[in-house]
Amino acid sequence: MKKWLSRFSYPIDEIVNRTVDRQVKLAVTGLSRSGKTVFITSLVHQLLHGLESTHLPFFQVANLGHLRGAKMMQQPDLHIPSFRYDMAIAQLGGEPPTWPQPTSSISEIRIAIRYESRHALLKHISPVHTLYVDIVDYPGEWLLDLPLLELTYEQWSEQVAHSCQAEPRLSLSKEWREFLATLDLNSPTAAATLRQAAELYTHFLLCCKDPQYGLSLLQPGRFTMPGDLKGAPLLEFCPLLEYPSSIPRENSLFAEMKRRYESYKEHVVKKFYLEHLVSFDRQIVLVDVLRAFNTGYATFADMREAINMILKSFHYGKSGFLNKLFHGFKIDKLFFAATKADHVTPNQLPALERFLQQMLISSQHHASFDGVTTETLALASVKCTQAAYTTFQGQRISCIKGVPLDADKPIALFPGEVPVEIPMPEEWVEGRFNFIEFKPPRLANIEGRGLPHIRMDRALEFLLGDKF
Amino acid sequence: MKKWLSRFSYPIDEIVNRTVDRQVKLAVTGLSRSGKTVFITSLVHQLLHGLESTHLPFFQVANLGHLRGAKMMQQPDLHIPSFRYDMAIAQLGGEPPTWPQPTSSISEIRIAIRYESRHALLKHISPVHTLYVDIVDYPGEWLLDLPLLELTYEQWSEQVAHSCQAEPRLSLSKEWREFLATLDLNSPTAAATLRQAAELYTHFLLCCKDPQYGLSLLQPGRFTMPGDLKGAPLLEFCPLLEYPSSIPRENSLFAEMKRRYESYKEHVVKKFYLEHLVSFDRQIVLVDVLRAFNTGYATFADMREAINMILKSFHYGKSGFLNKLFHGFKIDKLFFAATKADHVTPNQLPALERFLQQMLISSQHHASFDGVTTETLALASVKCTQAAYTTFQGQRISCIKGVPLDADKPIALFPGEVPVEIPMPEEWVEGRFNFIEFKPPRLANIEGRGLPHIRMDRALEFLLGDKF
Repeated sequence: MKKWLSRFSYPIDEIVNRTVDRQVKLAVTGLSRSGKTVFITSLVHQLLHGLESTHLPFFQVANLGHLRGAKMMQQPDLHIPSFRYDMAIAQLGGEPPTWPQPTSSISEIRIAIRYESRHALLKHISPVHTLYVDIVDYPGEWLLDLPLLELTYEQWSEQVAHSCQAEPRLSLSKEWREFLATLDLNSPTAAATLRQAAELYTHFLLCCKDPQYGLSLLQPGRFTMPGDLKGAPLLEFCPLLEYPSSIPRENSLFAEMKRRYESYKEHVVKKFYLEHLVSFDRQIVLVDVLRAFNTGYATFADMREAINMILKSFHYGKSGFLNKLFHGFKIDKLFFAATKADHVTPNQLPALERFLQQMLISSQHHASFDGVTTETLALASVKCTQAAYTTFQGQRISCIKGVPLDADKPIALFPGEVPVEIPMPEEWVEGRFNFIEFKPPRLANIEGRGLPHIRMDRALEFLLGDKF
Repeated sequence: MKKWLSRFSYPIDEIVNRTVDRQVKLAVTGLSRSGKTVFITSLVHQLLHGLESTHLPFFQVANLGHLRGAKMMQQPDLHIPSFRYDMAIAQLGGEPPTWPQPTSSISEIRIAIRYESRHALLKHISPVHTLYVDIVDYPGEWLLDLPLLELTYEQWSEQVAHSCQAEPRLSLSKEWREFLATLDLNSPTAAATLRQAAELYTHFLLCCKDPQYGLSLLQPGRFTMPGDLKGAPLLEFCPLLEYPSSIPRENSLFAEMKRRYESYKEHVVKKFYLEHLVSFDRQIVLVDVLRAFNTGYATFADMREAINMILKSFHYGKSGFLNKLFHGFKIDKLFFAATKADHVTPNQLPALERFLQQMLISSQHHASFDGVTTETLALASVKCTQAAYTTFQGQRISCIKGVPLDADKPIALFPGEVPVEIPMPEEWVEGRFNFIEFKPPRLANIEGRGLPHIRMDRALEFLLGDKF
């Protein structure tokens, strides 16, 4: 407000626009097939149908009746692929409905929200204002590349070597490790050797990414999704499990691996940072915690490490080396969401949320300390089950009812209990958890009202509430 | 030399390196599936086997015995995909040999050539010097985007509209033109309409590109090869055949098309210019003239226009608007080659060459005027026919012998005459020309000596001769 009053030399229109219309850029990424596309589709759908406010009780601007409407706008960055909301809605509204195709690279969409201001002075200038919400969707792997910026090749190699000492990476990395063992790291560079090492390492990463293991920490991220960089030397290196016994020569295999690692950081990671990350206002990280339960302790531990790496990156972005290197982040809110909360019974939502909180409990302090507010929430972008009851040993017990992904008829089932505390590694016995996936709900009229959801209104309030 | 003598304050090693070792960046592009991959593979192979100088009589440094050897080096730009020479050679040396896979984007390879200097002073410093030859391969479409930089959306639209008045574009563009006719250009922007218009226009370009028509002028180039830009709004527009009857509103379809055209120029064309084109020293443009003969006058006319657009771009790069906009080109040599010269009888080589010259006769003057030396040559990167003779009406007549692409045994055939003058449009009657394609030759030992070729030595001399 002060800013505005002191700027009376500007033309009045421009002052009004600058002060009254706002813009916020939400970045959405995810770990382990967490449902980014469905989340963004639902978020847009909720906003477009925000006038039917009954489905968004916790989204204040809608609940108080201050919303005047929302519409899709032309995205601001014409060189970024469009997020295809239209295609996702066509799939969810199909007969039968299907889950939208997942996105594989970056995409963008803009929504303009018209609302009545709560502020007396702004109201005086114009009764209705506009908030432009840009949503950018990008792969979690890109975000998990950020920590490389502060690691030397040797430090990063050590991290990878350490992670390969435990299963499932120990087994999955076997072929790559055996190939590495045959190499003389002090021998002169050979393009074919580097290429083969990178191919085996990439194959290892792809195995880790397979839903069977569902690991999140897949560095360098572009190895599994190269796009236009396919075949470039900066994607043809790999970490090492040990160093050359003598001081490496300048044209050695070791020196070349290191050089390519640095080139990757320069041309891929820094580029992502400068072209995209610096412009984000708020970051959403979706996590499929339930999949980790199903898959086991290793997946969970990997996910936890990934989450904490992300938190650390934002810490660095605000006050650490990234901030010194470049211009730092604008990001002031960081939102971790455990998706698919409709796959557990409603009374277990708090447990799911608490579980996610525990995963990041050690780092959360950092983030808020540095001016980043962190929030965790369990939500369902599109709710595809209904609460139901059954009896067990004569007692009424909560269960859920929905159509499993591989079935045609709805079933009622007890999906299992979410543990309140993180189980000890030995407690993640096979078959303890079995949260199943469901088909999307059949909706008579998808444009009739906002998609059924769990807690999307709370997500909206955290992400946008302070902007109205 | 002078430069060197005046720099005695530098450490001697650095002076020697700067003065003695040189570097040259050759850019290779092509029109109408002209055989870029085979050309680069042969060029590299000839250099690597340059010590067996008998196959390169016109390449002075080899012929005079000054060549000390050549080897492949690590490419300088690690973020550019590698040109896969190894794979191309494996295919050409296979049993049976096959033509290498064509490349679809940019790629790079570096060769280091060791040679004895002819210059007395340089000889004194070091008897053997190194020339680093970087070869960059990129699609002809990218080069043909350059003229857009000096065209407004309206000017470009007019050019396209003009070209769609004649066959085959008249028929091929029908569906797209009919869709355009249904649009109200002054109506508000609709993403779906822009997308559909772009899809129809892209389909039209793909039809033009089909070997059946083999057209070269496919602007904007990224429409048919989007890579990571797939789905970005800057690839979702098209030229217009007429303008709105009233002054277009700011949020109209027309205004949005224009805005995206400008964004394409900014994010795609200028980016290519600044990231790549400014660093090229010499440009090679390969042209499959024989295909134009087979396909007809329209293909020929389109190819001629493309060649002259390229010449004009280089003219602008040296002294025109491009030079003013940016820093201008370094390019000092421009080399047009009619490839597959082994598909005609040896006595027709001069006619093929003369034909190519005639295609660019109007522009050639410009290029040399601005300090760009232009050369035209008919060549065969890999010679897959042998000269042979047959008799016709009692006379001995030249013919060629090779294995046609769709056959298993060699045949001897009279491939037809290359006209000495450009035939009038009505003379390009169907079936007048029928130059057929051949399988690559079977080579007993592909690493034994340089690949059989026609005039690759002259090409090398023009491109590199002055650097030794």
